[in-house]
Amino acid sequence: MKALYFDGKLQLREVEKPKRAPSEALIRVLLAGICGTDREILKGYSGFRGIPGHEFMGRVVECDDPRWIGQRVVGEISIACGRCEWCAKGLGRHCPRRTVLGIVNHDGAFAEFLTLPSVNLHAVPEEVSDQMATFVEPVAAAAEILEQVRLAPGTRVAIIGDGRLGLVIAQVLKHAGAQVTLVGRHVWKLDLARAWGVRVLSEGDEELTSSSFPVTVEATGSPRGIGEALRLVEPRGTVVMKSTFHGPAHFDATKLVVDEVTLLGSRCGLFAPALALLQQGHVTVHHLVNKVFPLELGLEAFEYLDQTSALKVLLAA
Amino acid sequence: MKALYFDGKLQLREVEKPKRAPSEALIRVLLAGICGTDREILKGYSGFRGIPGHEFMGRVVECDDPRWIGQRVVGEISIACGRCEWCAKGLGRHCPRRTVLGIVNHDGAFAEFLTLPSVNLHAVPEEVSDQMATFVEPVAAAAEILEQVRLAPGTRVAIIGDGRLGLVIAQVLKHAGAQVTLVGRHVWKLDLARAWGVRVLSEGDEELTSSSFPVTVEATGSPRGIGEALRLVEPRGTVVMKSTFHGPAHFDATKLVVDEVTLLGSRCGLFAPALALLQQGHVTVHHLVNKVFPLELGLEAFEYLDQTSALKVLLAA
Repeated sequence: MKALYFDGKLQLREVEKPKRAPSEALIRVLLAGICGTDREILKGYSGFRGIPGHEFMGRVVECDDPRWIGQRVVGEISIACGRCEWCAKGLGRHCPRRTVLGIVNHDGAFAEFLTLPSVNLHAVPEEVSDQMATFVEPVAAAAEILEQVRLAPGTRVAIIGDGRLGLVIAQVLKHAGAQVTLVGRHVWKLDLARAWGVRVLSEGDEELTSSSFPVTVEATGSPRGIGEALRLVEPRGTVVMKSTFHGPAHFDATKLVVDEVTLLGSRCGLFAPALALLQQGHVTVHHLVNKVFPLELGLEAFEYLDQTSALKVLLAA
Repeated sequence: MKALYFDGKLQLREVEKPKRAPSEALIRVLLAGICGTDREILKGYSGFRGIPGHEFMGRVVECDDPRWIGQRVVGEISIACGRCEWCAKGLGRHCPRRTVLGIVNHDGAFAEFLTLPSVNLHAVPEEVSDQMATFVEPVAAAAEILEQVRLAPGTRVAIIGDGRLGLVIAQVLKHAGAQVTLVGRHVWKLDLARAWGVRVLSEGDEELTSSSFPVTVEATGSPRGIGEALRLVEPRGTVVMKSTFHGPAHFDATKLVVDEVTLLGSRCGLFAPALALLQQGHVTVHHLVNKVFPLELGLEAFEYLDQTSALKVLLAA
């Protein structure tokens, strides 16, 4: 099969079709999204070698359980051992022996086929289109914030970063009753959010005074966001940190300690509530896909992302 | 009066005795402790100019309320406006208009006299000696952790840093029922903690495996501690950050986000519970004072700290 393969350099290759274990399904990938994490992997993040890609939707072609065959599916990306104390607590996504689709020791979605344990799969409801389904992972990442932070109705939240994750988080937190301000750099992205009824401000706007939000969310995808998220948060407030990137981050430890700020690392959450948000139309992902490239032109898709401020690029396998 | 004065350089000076406002008491300083924060102030931390020093005990010489006259006292160091929403919530130590004794716009304790609002004062109980009383501030800083983190009995906590704050935190958390491991570099400091029944390990000990403690406390007083505190904490665990220093800190944002760690800034707490811990003997501060210098030799005291691994040096005014 065709796949994008990374071994220090990303290349289109002809590789062997993956073989599923009995607990796994073989899935024909239909669409895969390129995420900021994939671009960090190409810079060395996680030391990954193999086929990257973890945001996908596809159709099951082989599985021990015949009910899955032919189903449109998405899949949770952490493949847990199922036997440790973390797995027993239902926190398989923190299992120390886990592999992660396209990120840690498990070939990913930039290919015609992939394998995943069938317990990781979720059927995509009819109301959710193929393109919408590729947003389940970022919507789940946004919904995870609600699992970690109690947001009373009307809580003022500043989200730093108007990329795809910031735009999705803005919608999810607004739906949850928060009073959201999205802070970004790109007029057209902020206009999208404004159309959804989200308050938007440009970075550097004078309304962004120090220590003025009880909760801030860092979603820039780069090391620069943490400084602004920490600057904007009130004493005893919470900074939710979403970005993963290669290399260390710098922060003002004095502000953190003196203002007794809570800095909360937050990753991907569960897919079921995310699918429900998409199915019920509470999160709009139309307009977020800028371009769909065929898998064969995957390298061009990465170049396109490097050269534009595109929100989302998909690969069609 | 004599005082140590900092205006880019620390000097012994003859300065005017401070005048108290009607709400304030004038206090004759008896003992003042040199804290890591004072040494950071000399490097530029907080941009302070004036008389540093915030750990002290003394005797009230002037006050509108005659019951304070002659009392041995310690004093909370934040001087709040008393009128803002933070003050209304009882969080005057986060008041945005506060000054702070010897740290922010209020002359401190490295002098013969200081002033503080009488609402900041606490009488020192008879059981607490003059030297013990100078430890109220660090004990309050340790007790603050218990206000911020729920520590179920037996919770395993690693404390990074065997300085005075680390040694005090170890005792306070042990008394609260935690199963404490103190991680340090100095045999004689670790021996002190071992004598109190605290488990101790040297930095780099192979028992210190990654992701092995649900709670870690960073108390090194320098930027280096955060990396180890973050390395040792479990997924979904909490890192309590205690150190303030001049300049930024670096940290592994990927570990924070992927393991969904909570990084909690923690500062000084309330004095009343700290005095009670000292009065009841739950925190031992004997052996922590290495040397007492007269105020006139204050510069030598700072040099002594630079050249030794002393835990605590006091100035007698």
